[in-house]
Amino acid sequence: MTPAKYDVLAIGNALFDVLVRTKDDFLVRHGMAKGSMALIDQAQAAAIYADMGTATEISGGSAANTIVGLASFGARTAYVGKIKDDQIGKLYAHDIRAAGVAFDTKPASEGPATGCSYILVTPDGERTMNTYLGAAQDLVPADIDEAQIAAASIVYLEGYLWDPPQAKEAFLKASKIAHGAGRKVALTLSDSFCVDRYRAEFLDLMRSKTVDLIFANESELHALYQTSDFDTALKALGQDVALGVVTRSEKGCAVVEGDSITLVPAASIEQLVDTTGAGDLFAAGFLFGLVRNAGYENAGRLAALAAAEVIQHIGARPQVSLKELAQQHGLPV
Amino acid sequence: MTPAKYDVLAIGNALFDVLVRTKDDFLVRHGMAKGSMALIDQAQAAAIYADMGTATEISGGSAANTIVGLASFGARTAYVGKIKDDQIGKLYAHDIRAAGVAFDTKPASEGPATGCSYILVTPDGERTMNTYLGAAQDLVPADIDEAQIAAASIVYLEGYLWDPPQAKEAFLKASKIAHGAGRKVALTLSDSFCVDRYRAEFLDLMRSKTVDLIFANESELHALYQTSDFDTALKALGQDVALGVVTRSEKGCAVVEGDSITLVPAASIEQLVDTTGAGDLFAAGFLFGLVRNAGYENAGRLAALAAAEVIQHIGARPQVSLKELAQQHGLPV
Repeated sequence: MTPAKYDVLAIGNALFDVLVRTKDDFLVRHGMAKGSMALIDQAQAAAIYADMGTATEISGGSAANTIVGLASFGARTAYVGKIKDDQIGKLYAHDIRAAGVAFDTKPASEGPATGCSYILVTPDGERTMNTYLGAAQDLVPADIDEAQIAAASIVYLEGYLWDPPQAKEAFLKASKIAHGAGRKVALTLSDSFCVDRYRAEFLDLMRSKTVDLIFANESELHALYQTSDFDTALKALGQDVALGVVTRSEKGCAVVEGDSITLVPAASIEQLVDTTGAGDLFAAGFLFGLVRNAGYENAGRLAALAAAEVIQHIGARPQVSLKELAQQHGLPV
Repeated sequence: MTPAKYDVLAIGNALFDVLVRTKDDFLVRHGMAKGSMALIDQAQAAAIYADMGTATEISGGSAANTIVGLASFGARTAYVGKIKDDQIGKLYAHDIRAAGVAFDTKPASEGPATGCSYILVTPDGERTMNTYLGAAQDLVPADIDEAQIAAASIVYLEGYLWDPPQAKEAFLKASKIAHGAGRKVALTLSDSFCVDRYRAEFLDLMRSKTVDLIFANESELHALYQTSDFDTALKALGQDVALGVVTRSEKGCAVVEGDSITLVPAASIEQLVDTTGAGDLFAAGFLFGLVRNAGYENAGRLAALAAAEVIQHIGARPQVSLKELAQQHGLPV
């Protein structure tokens, strides 16, 4: 096996976040399920945006947030995602490259605009996302560069990729290349509604060993196994995938490997502002711990620290150096 | 005099802010004068942006920030500024309208893109701005609608309008219409380098009574009168304009009307994050006090409160209802 050029390569829907603080009645009026991600078309996007207040724009996208978090820890990173070569696409490409991430996916010159996620942040800090995939729906297998995938120790994929028609083929192609090169493949389940849409396929990805590591939050895990009993679901996960990591918000996380379970507490915060990116940055910290062979306990602590940073401000990208933050907390970087 | 439809109408350079946290050495390396606004062309903008880190985008523009602040206090407001009908222009128009501001300036369909200000925020919270005017440089007298100007109690103009070639003609046209309709005209001096560029013209605007109210910060006032003695400069301002308001950061502000001076303290803050928009929001609060006939003391307190809100987060637009904030502080709204 040749030495890896990248610690982690992530593939996901490239989305520009349009964030607005709002009250709960906005969600009720628009029939939005609080805390979830709903796919919307261009007309719905226009209608929701027209009714939204003054916004803040920050590059986002689940796997992209994770990879930027990894870069902030000091990992060597690359990202694959589809934007258009429009104004928003240029902002997007700038931000991910400015974070130190290699980003070479050819932008679309025709077709829909760069995708946007319209995110409502309620006073309790919870985020509710409405995603117009735009150019992200045109990620195709040809966007997967074999040499680049083979050069990454871990390929990280988001469950949201199951939504755009050809992205799942790109996902499977990447997984095959990675395993052929002796690399590992990680998947986040992304969202409980996403799990509802693709439950059988996600379980098959795990049981067929197409993925080696699963990230899920509690509600996604419950959705996956259609049970309200956490311990039952966690045990099932341990049997279905080589390594499972389940986040439980302020209750910390559980790492399951076969019959073995490691529990790690959450990091303390001063003020919850916006949960956007919490799971993404958790995954960044955990993957960074794996890359550094820091052990599950330390990986969980790095994960909790990164998640705690991102939920204390608006937007899903870290605002400080996660490497310095980890050092301040005496964690291995 | 017919009743005013708007309390305040503002005219300014419509600019989308691209904000990045950076260290001081970035400013030194690029030869930027800390705390100032420098005009840059498209090539310079591209070079600076390429070297900048991950950004946050929020609609800005000095007078636009002021008018959004006034709307947040509950004033009836309108804005005149030139954007292009591109993606960023659409974000810009959404934000100002979502704030409750009437915005009817026809966007450009050709020519340069919507203007952007690349803002570096250093660890001390100071902001250094690099402005690519873009479409804003094409604001022309034809963009000034006589009936709309005449319908506003106060027309508020930014000194930055002296930079684009035809905007000053638009400015003068608006002032003439406003005075013809028995309204007041206010001007912010904007930036000490801007004052250096247009000192004689700004003094002439005051002495010819083209403007009735001047907003300035300490360094702009010193630049205007080319003196380092504050009292001398303040006294001169009192003679040159009907009403002068000078901000002094944490030392509060001085309101000068002829020989009479009113001093108002600054509002306390917990943490200085980003001074972008401090002067703009100060002007919003003061103008709101004038509109409500609250007296200079209360106007100064409303101004200080709005400035304190905006410097405690990234971006130059208020993140809470200034009306509610003022009510919480027992100030008249």
